[in-house]
Amino acid sequence: MLEVCEVGNKVSKEDYKEAIPALRVGLINAQYDLRDADFPVVIWIAGDDRLAANALVNRLNEWMDSRFIETRVFADATAEEHQRPPLWRLWRSIPPNGRASFFVGGLMRAANQRAEKEMKEAEFSAWLRHMANMQNALVADGALILKFFLHTPAKVQKKKLKEAAKHPELGWQVDERDWAALDSLGPVLPIAERILRETSAPGAPWTIVESTDERYRDLTVARTILAAITARLAEDGNGKTGPSVAESVFGDFDEKANLLSAIDLTKTIDRDTYREELAKQQAKLHALSIEARKRGVSTVLAFEGWDAAGKGGVIRRVTAALEAGDYRVIPVAAPTQEERKFHYLWRFWRDLPAAGKFVIFDRTWYGRVLVERLEGFATLAEWQRAYDEINDFEAQLVEHGCYVAKFWLHISPEEQLSRFQARENTEYKKHKITEEDYRNRERWDEYVKAVDQMVLRTTSVGAQWHVIPANNKYLARIETLKAINKGLERTLRQR
Amino acid sequence: MLEVCEVGNKVSKEDYKEAIPALRVGLINAQYDLRDADFPVVIWIAGDDRLAANALVNRLNEWMDSRFIETRVFADATAEEHQRPPLWRLWRSIPPNGRASFFVGGLMRAANQRAEKEMKEAEFSAWLRHMANMQNALVADGALILKFFLHTPAKVQKKKLKEAAKHPELGWQVDERDWAALDSLGPVLPIAERILRETSAPGAPWTIVESTDERYRDLTVARTILAAITARLAEDGNGKTGPSVAESVFGDFDEKANLLSAIDLTKTIDRDTYREELAKQQAKLHALSIEARKRGVSTVLAFEGWDAAGKGGVIRRVTAALEAGDYRVIPVAAPTQEERKFHYLWRFWRDLPAAGKFVIFDRTWYGRVLVERLEGFATLAEWQRAYDEINDFEAQLVEHGCYVAKFWLHISPEEQLSRFQARENTEYKKHKITEEDYRNRERWDEYVKAVDQMVLRTTSVGAQWHVIPANNKYLARIETLKAINKGLERTLRQR
Repeated sequence: MLEVCEVGNKVSKEDYKEAIPALRVGLINAQYDLRDADFPVVIWIAGDDRLAANALVNRLNEWMDSRFIETRVFADATAEEHQRPPLWRLWRSIPPNGRASFFVGGLMRAANQRAEKEMKEAEFSAWLRHMANMQNALVADGALILKFFLHTPAKVQKKKLKEAAKHPELGWQVDERDWAALDSLGPVLPIAERILRETSAPGAPWTIVESTDERYRDLTVARTILAAITARLAEDGNGKTGPSVAESVFGDFDEKANLLSAIDLTKTIDRDTYREELAKQQAKLHALSIEARKRGVSTVLAFEGWDAAGKGGVIRRVTAALEAGDYRVIPVAAPTQEERKFHYLWRFWRDLPAAGKFVIFDRTWYGRVLVERLEGFATLAEWQRAYDEINDFEAQLVEHGCYVAKFWLHISPEEQLSRFQARENTEYKKHKITEEDYRNRERWDEYVKAVDQMVLRTTSVGAQWHVIPANNKYLARIETLKAINKGLERTLRQR
Repeated sequence: MLEVCEVGNKVSKEDYKEAIPALRVGLINAQYDLRDADFPVVIWIAGDDRLAANALVNRLNEWMDSRFIETRVFADATAEEHQRPPLWRLWRSIPPNGRASFFVGGLMRAANQRAEKEMKEAEFSAWLRHMANMQNALVADGALILKFFLHTPAKVQKKKLKEAAKHPELGWQVDERDWAALDSLGPVLPIAERILRETSAPGAPWTIVESTDERYRDLTVARTILAAITARLAEDGNGKTGPSVAESVFGDFDEKANLLSAIDLTKTIDRDTYREELAKQQAKLHALSIEARKRGVSTVLAFEGWDAAGKGGVIRRVTAALEAGDYRVIPVAAPTQEERKFHYLWRFWRDLPAAGKFVIFDRTWYGRVLVERLEGFATLAEWQRAYDEINDFEAQLVEHGCYVAKFWLHISPEEQLSRFQARENTEYKKHKITEEDYRNRERWDEYVKAVDQMVLRTTSVGAQWHVIPANNKYLARIETLKAINKGLERTLRQR
């Protein structure tokens, strides 16, 4: 989940310098307007990088009017705090209407305690439930809750720590806790990811911020805060079907590097290698499918991707390796009039596989946060809560023992155009290309952001996203088969 | 929690006969109107009494137009169902917009499986979380979810089973499962209560129905369904601050017997017995308070009751037994302008006791579901979700090891009037009586219903309600002290 954000976002010194003055004025003005508002703002800064969280909070305090914002750091509980329930210190720290507070830390500490078994599962899951309930209570009461999780890859952190330790005169206080935290990151991060998932509430989602570049980090968080407060102040409550936050909290900013831009689309493989590898991977999948059938392990494969990215071709190479009775392919179009009478997840629940079977969805429930989001078929609140709903749906599959894998077939806009044109020139493929396909191309950048957010918010250890470079069809097929074989093999081994 | 509803509700044959025709017409009309609605209705019938659930569903199917309502019984999972996640069969069964379904059972089965350790805690709490998430998803999507839990005291069930077994010709199918279920009710009911608490979601609360009297049971459920559907069809969504259901789902009907009417207010004790018993109970409380201090066990006592019920006098008899440094009394008035800037629970979190201390709240967070509900200071959605918020708040105290007890001091309206008049005639008590006190008396019956619902929805093993008969002040003081001593002693023993 977290490593998905490692795409190398950075902001140049010049862009940074240019952005700051307006941003500061905006933040100060928002704080000023906030004073008359009938809601409080809680800005939670957590992350796997303590230095980053500290530096960010200092920066934000410098940019904002610190008379109107309090900073609460949740370090080790004090003696006084130990005498009360764990959330006491949070409740004590929530700001009144018209005020904002930074809540700093507390999250990795809980993850650490769980990793080291200082907290038992029952206590930990109760804590998660109370955290979610507290947020629901505050959001329902009107609070604006913004949550940022700063993620810095371990090796970048190591470098930064070494650097900081060399320059104590610059004010960095590196101590053994930081090194210890870094050492234990391996087992702790999956627990942190679980916390992020289970404490993501409608109207209070986590924004995961790549924190390798400090300028990018500070700018992204500050802009998100500004956009969210501004949007909230402007809100009239009409047409709301539930709690939501400004789209920017989900959608990010234009210049942001993203998952898709980080994919190398130039790789290819030649026809001979393809044929050889295809036969090998299909044989493997066939063998695995027979084992899965015997052991009753079901598989759910979800395919998404750009129009003309080659989903159908990939799916045919998967099904070719399976026995006819073992799989179903579910082509997902816009919901029928009947299907529209149900919750959008209903039709996907309906088609779940029996024990040992494969179900392959050609387009999926992710339509909710892609086409339905971008075409306005789902409201702001609807597509925002869909991430949590989808995570809960897939968690149930994973807990049931299913193998779940999700694929985004990625091509470049140029490749798409040439495929569209090729289709128009091929008699039996002509019907596959419509006006709408061309219209969708105009929203390419919006889709890129929506895909980025989708992958970031719904990837989990048990239900991983695979972004497949698909400019080369051969490569796409082989990469997909390999990913399925690897994942299914691991699932079978773990059971 | 469940035994709180055992107050002897019944409906006479005549009243029943009179009510049925209009009710049936109402239900059929509501079903008819529902067909064009853009939401589905799920009516969940569960309970600790299988016969009752079956009989009720048959009756409802007879009263409603069964072409437009489906009945799904969640018995042992079928082979097909076993192959999917546990909630698959629920998702498959939800009705489309404009239709209604009965969901029958499933809940006690889960409680049983947990009691017999067939389900581990991790699996069970995941199931509870998924259930709550599913409801939230459906409610957010517009579904109307009504949930009834039928409670019949074990000894009544036993009688009914024996009776039914004698008359197989009447169609009752009593089998060994029913006897086994009855035998295991002791350990299973607390788990059922946990399920009710943790699956109570905003907009989808449980209505607990006393099921000893069949006519009362069937009438109450049918009227609640009718009122909820009618209210929902009439809803315009204005001024909503979250999901809610018709007040009747919480408020019940006029003729309903209730907790307070079941309290015997005629008991008294004489002055000498009082003095003797007071000294004894205070000495005991003093000793317990010292042990609690040593062992760091905190106590939260919450006092509610009618105006002039004698809360102050009771509290003084409690504090007289404690050492000055060990307790604080928090008088709770209407929130100040500052306090109003926070979530209503905030000021109560603020005042939680340190380890080993007592905090005594003279009026409490329950104002939200009493005066704020009845005076319209809290919206329908606000006071409805307050039950869940309060349960979560108190659960955190209990999990932290606190002793939590809640008292409703109950007097009759006549006793209250004579106390008001006595106050007016006593110089130093004159200020305690205002116009408002007299105005509140006019809403006596509404308060009775609100208190009934409050106790029913927020009593739990760890945070019990004690309804104290207080027409006799001596008795009220002794009963309260006894309850505290008993509860605190048990808490200390368990730790």
